[in-house]
Amino acid sequence: MNNVQQEFEETLKRIQSQNGVVGVIVVNNNGDLITSTLDNRSSVSHAEMIMKLADNAKGFVRNLDPSNELTVLRMGSKRREVLVAPGKDFIIIVLQKQNHKSFMKSIANSL
Amino acid sequence: MNNVQQEFEETLKRIQSQNGVVGVIVVNNNGDLITSTLDNRSSVSHAEMIMKLADNAKGFVRNLDPSNELTVLRMGSKRREVLVAPGKDFIIIVLQKQNHKSFMKSIANSL
Repeated sequence: MNNVQQEFEETLKRIQSQNGVVGVIVVNNNGDLITSTLDNRSSVSHAEMIMKLADNAKGFVRNLDPSNELTVLRMGSKRREVLVAPGKDFIIIVLQKQNHKSFMKSIANSL
Repeated sequence: MNNVQQEFEETLKRIQSQNGVVGVIVVNNNGDLITSTLDNRSSVSHAEMIMKLADNAKGFVRNLDPSNELTVLRMGSKRREVLVAPGKDFIIIVLQKQNHKSFMKSIANSL
């Protein structure tokens, strides 16, 4: 494993070890599944929907300002909190239980 | 003005008075513009994109769990933070400058 892969794996482990995190999915910008802690069927289905959502969100922020760029997309729902972090090459999707506030707070604080 | 309208107007004023809030748009669930602090053209264009995004997000959280419901959608970008709060009858869209953390923090804390 080279340094980049190692850093990648460590980052994933760190996210997954956060309180209330129930799943982490990583896809590349073509929508191909890179890695996931969920089963393959759910991962592919979630990734497909998230890619569409992220594309729409990217379009929206560019509509606000053409030089603007989406950094994070978050969905709160009754039972789940979903965080989508689009990167240069990958999109990281984190599924979290709704009652665990710590991760969302730490993200809000780091904005 | 009846009580409901008054409460509605007061809520909007309260949101708009938050640090860094640059615009508030309210649409009904058919996508019709109810009120906005932005010009009509921008409001209609933003509302249209947000309706599509919110529909996709609703679909996604229901895909996670059919009895689940979207409560909030947030987009962070380099220059703007966008909050979308879908209600029973209305969708409230709040546009905020990215550097103002207080509103996002207060929302994260209230989750």
